[in-house]
Amino acid sequence: MGGGVGRVLMIFGSLTDTDNISVDSITLFVSLLCACIVIGHLLEENRWMNESINALFTGLGTGIIILLATKGASSRIFEFNEELFFIYLLPPIIFNAGFQVKKKQFFRNFMTIMLFGAVGTGISFFIISFGAKVLFETLEMGYFELRDFLAIGAIFSATDSVCTLQVLNQDETPLLYSLVFGEGVVNDATSVVLFNALQKFDLTDVNSRVVLKFIGNFFSLFITSTLLGVLIGLLSAYIIKKLYFGRHSTDREVALMILMSYLSYIMAELFDLSGILTVFLCGIVMSHYTWYNVTERSRVTTKHTFATLSLIAETFIFLYVGMDALDIEKWKLVSNSLGKSVGASSLLLALVLVGRAAFIFPLSILSNFFKKSQSEKLNFKQQVTIWWAGLMRGAVSMALAYNQFAKSGHTKQPGNATMITCTITVVLFSTVVFGLLTKHLVRLLLFPSNHNSTTVSSEPSSPNSMTLPLLANGQESEDIEMDGTIRRPPSLLMLLSTPTHTVHFYWRKFDNAYMRPVFGGRGFAEFVPGSPKEGSIN
Amino acid sequence: MGGGVGRVLMIFGSLTDTDNISVDSITLFVSLLCACIVIGHLLEENRWMNESINALFTGLGTGIIILLATKGASSRIFEFNEELFFIYLLPPIIFNAGFQVKKKQFFRNFMTIMLFGAVGTGISFFIISFGAKVLFETLEMGYFELRDFLAIGAIFSATDSVCTLQVLNQDETPLLYSLVFGEGVVNDATSVVLFNALQKFDLTDVNSRVVLKFIGNFFSLFITSTLLGVLIGLLSAYIIKKLYFGRHSTDREVALMILMSYLSYIMAELFDLSGILTVFLCGIVMSHYTWYNVTERSRVTTKHTFATLSLIAETFIFLYVGMDALDIEKWKLVSNSLGKSVGASSLLLALVLVGRAAFIFPLSILSNFFKKSQSEKLNFKQQVTIWWAGLMRGAVSMALAYNQFAKSGHTKQPGNATMITCTITVVLFSTVVFGLLTKHLVRLLLFPSNHNSTTVSSEPSSPNSMTLPLLANGQESEDIEMDGTIRRPPSLLMLLSTPTHTVHFYWRKFDNAYMRPVFGGRGFAEFVPGSPKEGSIN
Repeated sequence: MGGGVGRVLMIFGSLTDTDNISVDSITLFVSLLCACIVIGHLLEENRWMNESINALFTGLGTGIIILLATKGASSRIFEFNEELFFIYLLPPIIFNAGFQVKKKQFFRNFMTIMLFGAVGTGISFFIISFGAKVLFETLEMGYFELRDFLAIGAIFSATDSVCTLQVLNQDETPLLYSLVFGEGVVNDATSVVLFNALQKFDLTDVNSRVVLKFIGNFFSLFITSTLLGVLIGLLSAYIIKKLYFGRHSTDREVALMILMSYLSYIMAELFDLSGILTVFLCGIVMSHYTWYNVTERSRVTTKHTFATLSLIAETFIFLYVGMDALDIEKWKLVSNSLGKSVGASSLLLALVLVGRAAFIFPLSILSNFFKKSQSEKLNFKQQVTIWWAGLMRGAVSMALAYNQFAKSGHTKQPGNATMITCTITVVLFSTVVFGLLTKHLVRLLLFPSNHNSTTVSSEPSSPNSMTLPLLANGQESEDIEMDGTIRRPPSLLMLLSTPTHTVHFYWRKFDNAYMRPVFGGRGFAEFVPGSPKEGSIN
Repeated sequence: MGGGVGRVLMIFGSLTDTDNISVDSITLFVSLLCACIVIGHLLEENRWMNESINALFTGLGTGIIILLATKGASSRIFEFNEELFFIYLLPPIIFNAGFQVKKKQFFRNFMTIMLFGAVGTGISFFIISFGAKVLFETLEMGYFELRDFLAIGAIFSATDSVCTLQVLNQDETPLLYSLVFGEGVVNDATSVVLFNALQKFDLTDVNSRVVLKFIGNFFSLFITSTLLGVLIGLLSAYIIKKLYFGRHSTDREVALMILMSYLSYIMAELFDLSGILTVFLCGIVMSHYTWYNVTERSRVTTKHTFATLSLIAETFIFLYVGMDALDIEKWKLVSNSLGKSVGASSLLLALVLVGRAAFIFPLSILSNFFKKSQSEKLNFKQQVTIWWAGLMRGAVSMALAYNQFAKSGHTKQPGNATMITCTITVVLFSTVVFGLLTKHLVRLLLFPSNHNSTTVSSEPSSPNSMTLPLLANGQESEDIEMDGTIRRPPSLLMLLSTPTHTVHFYWRKFDNAYMRPVFGGRGFAEFVPGSPKEGSIN
C-alpha cells in the first residue's frame, strides 16, 4: 500500500514523477510542429524551400540547441520508434494521398506504374546490394553478411512516397506525379514480398522455382491487399448510404470514415499484407463512393481533416529525422573512421543514382513501346524528371536502417554505427539537395515547352467545376471531365488510338449500372435534407 | 548482427513477431469503435439509450466473448492505461466542450459554478472520506490507512464531465448544462490542489495556516491555469490573423488550431497545472477569436473535427470501461468476500448520493441569496436535477482507483482488489442506471412547466441566425443574441436587476475596443478572398 495518495498525484499532476520526460518531449514536439507550420507558410512563396526541408532544418536547429544545452550528451528527445512511424504516422499520409489522388491519371498509367514499382524496385535492389558488396570490400568497411548487403539494397531502394508528395505538384505535373507516387506505393508491396521471401528461402540456392514462387507471392499479396482496401472502402460507402438514410449526423459520418480508413491499414498489417497499398486503395474507393454519400459539411470536413492529419504527420517525420541526424552517440562511434563514413555515403548515393537510372530509362522505353499514341509516350526530359524525383530517401529508409543495424536505437558496433550515419547522410543529402533542385529541374525541363507535362489531360476542363466552389479541389473537376468523356460514345477511331479510354468507358458503364446504385457516389447518393441547414448551401 | 534481414521484416510485415498483440488489439478496438458509432446512430431515437451506455454494453459484450474465447483467462485486450487516458483521450473531449459551450450562459453563472466546483467538491470529499472511514470499520473491510480513505473520498468526488456532456442537452437545458459541466471543470482544478496539498502537508497537524495556504494554492493554480489557456488561445488568434493576412491555407489553419489547443493542455500538465481547466479556456478563447479569423472551410472543418475527435475519444473510454469491468483476475480475488464487496459498493453509492446532496442544496440556497432577479434563482426541481445529473462516476474515477489500489493494473491484496471492483460497480451502476434515468428525470421535472429550464435565455433568438445556415449550431445564434443585448444601452433599472448583464455589457465594449481589433473575432477578421472559391459561399 505505502505510497497512498502520493500515487494518485501521479496521474493528476500527471507526469511530474515518472512520465516527465514524455510530457516534456510532447510539449517540445508540439511547439516545434506549430513553428514548422508557421514557417512553412511564411516561406511558401520561396522558390528554394519546401515544407520538408524546412522541417528538417528546424529539427537540425533544435538538435544543435539540445546538444549545447545538454553539453553534448544528447541531441534528441526520444528514440526513433518504428511503431510510431508505421502504426500512426504513415497511414494518414498514404490514405490522404489515395483520397486526393487524381484517379483517372493514376489508372491510365497503371501498367507503367506496376513496371516501375515491381520490376524497377527489384532491379534497383539488386544493383545496390551487388554494388555495395563489391565496393565495400575495397573500402575495408568491416565484416558484413550477405543478408546485410541485401538489407542495404532494400534500405536504399525504398522510395520515399512522402517526399514525392512534397516536391511534385499534382496539378502542375499530373502524369509524373502519378507515376512517381504510384511507383512508391507498389514499391512497398514489393518490399514486403522481398523481405518475406528472403526470410523464408535459403539464399544459397536460388533457382527458377524460387523465382516463380516469389513472383506468385507478389501477385497474391498485391491482389489481396488491393481487395482488402477496396472491400473496406465499399463497406464504408454501403454503411453510410444504407444506415444513414433519412437522417445524417456529420460527426458520426466523419468518425466512421476516419476509423474505417485506419481499420483497412491495421487489418492489412494484421494479415501481413501491404498496409500502404491497402490504405491507398481504400482512400481511392472512399473518395469515389463514400465521400458522395455524406453531407456537404462532412465532405468539407473530411477533405481538410485528412489533408491536415497528413500535413502534421509529414512535418513530424521530417522534424524527427532532422533532430535525430545529430545523435552524438553514433557520431562518436564513427569519428575514428570519418573518412570511411564519408566514402561509404558517397558510394551509396552513387549507387542510388545508378540503380534508379538502370530501371527508369529501359523500362520507359519498354512502356513507350506498348503505347500507341505519341502523346502518351514518355519523352527523355520526362524520364529524367521521373528518375530525379524518385531519388529522395526518407523516413522509410531510416526506419529500415535502424531496424537492421541498431537494436532499440543504440549502436555498439562501429560497422553498424557507420551504416546508420551513412543512411542519415544519404537521407539528409538526398532530401535537401535533390529536394531543393527538383522544383527547378521540373521548371527547367518541362515548362519551357509547356505542353509536354500535361499531355494526358487533353480534355478541356469543364466550366461546370466553378459551380461547386466549396469542393472544387481537383477531384470534382476531374469527375466532371469523366462525365464529359461519357457523353461522347467511343468511336472505332478512339478505340484504336486510346485503348485506356475504352477501358475507362466500360468501367464507367459498369460503375453507373451496378456499383453506384448500391454504394452511392456522385449523382447516386439520395439527397435527404436531414436538417434545414443541409439544404441551404446546395 | 545475427538476425539479418529477419529484423527488417519486423517492421514491414511489422508486427508479426513482437507487436502482434498491439496490432490485434488496435484492430479489435477500431472495429468496435465503428460498431459503436453505427449502433449509436441506429439507437439515437431510442429514449432509453445514450451513446455512453451503448458503448459500455458493447464493451461488456466483447468482454464476455473474450472471456469465453480465452476460456476464462482474460476479458480485456490491454490494461487500463492512465497515460492513454489523460494524455490522449481526455484533452479532445474537454477542448471540444469549451469550443462548443454557450459562453454567455457559462460566464453568467460563473459564481455558482465556482461555488459548486470548489466548495462543493471539498464538502463531498470530506463526507465520503469520513463516511467510508466510519462505515468500513463496521464492515470489517481490512486495514486501510488514513491516506487511503482520503483517496476514496477523492475517487468518488470526481465528477465525470464526459458523462454530463452525454446526458444533459445544451440546447434543451442550457442553465443546468453549464452548471453541471462547469462544476466538473472546476472540480478538476480542486482535485489537483487537493492532492498536491495532501501530498505535501502533514496530515496529523491541520491548522488554520494550512487551510489558508491550501486556499491560496487553489486560487493561484486556478488563475495560472486560466491565464495559460487564454494566452495560448489568444496567441493562436494573433498568429492566424497576422501571418495569414493576404492568403489563407485551410490545412495549415486547421493544423495550427489542433496543435495549439493540444499544446495548451500538455503545457499545463508540464507545469503541474490543471490541464482540463487550461484546455477548456483555450477552447472558449479559440471559438471567440481564432475561429473567426480562418476561412469558411476551416470553420466547418474545425467545428466538426473537434466534435468528431471528442466523439471517438468518449466512445473509446466507455468501450474500455465496459470491457475492463469483467476483468476476471480481480473478481477472483474478491470472490470469497462477494457479500462485503456488494456491501461496500452500496455504501459508497449511498455516500456519493449523500455527499452530493450535502452541497448542492445548501449552496444553491446560498447562490439564490445573492441573485436579485427571481428568474435567475434555482428552484427546487432544478436543484434536484443538478444533484442527479452530477452523480455519475466515470473514467476519471477508474483512473484514480487504479492508481491508488493497483500497481500497473494488477491487484494482489484482497482489500485493494475489493476497492477496484467497488469502483467498477459504482461506475457501471451510476452510468447505466443514473444515466438511463436522467433524460426522463429532466423531462419529468422540468418540461411539464416548460419555462423553468430556459429562464435565463430570455432574449428572443435573432432571426439572423438563419442566414448562416452552414454554421448555425448554437454558437453563432448566441453571438447574435449578444449583439442584440448591446443595442439596448444599460439603464439604471437593468443595472440593479441584472448585474451580470452589466458586466457583460462592459466586457463587450472592452472586447470590441481593444481585444477584437488585435485578435480578430466576429466582424473583425479581414475578409481576404484568398482564392475565388472562398468568396462564393458568403
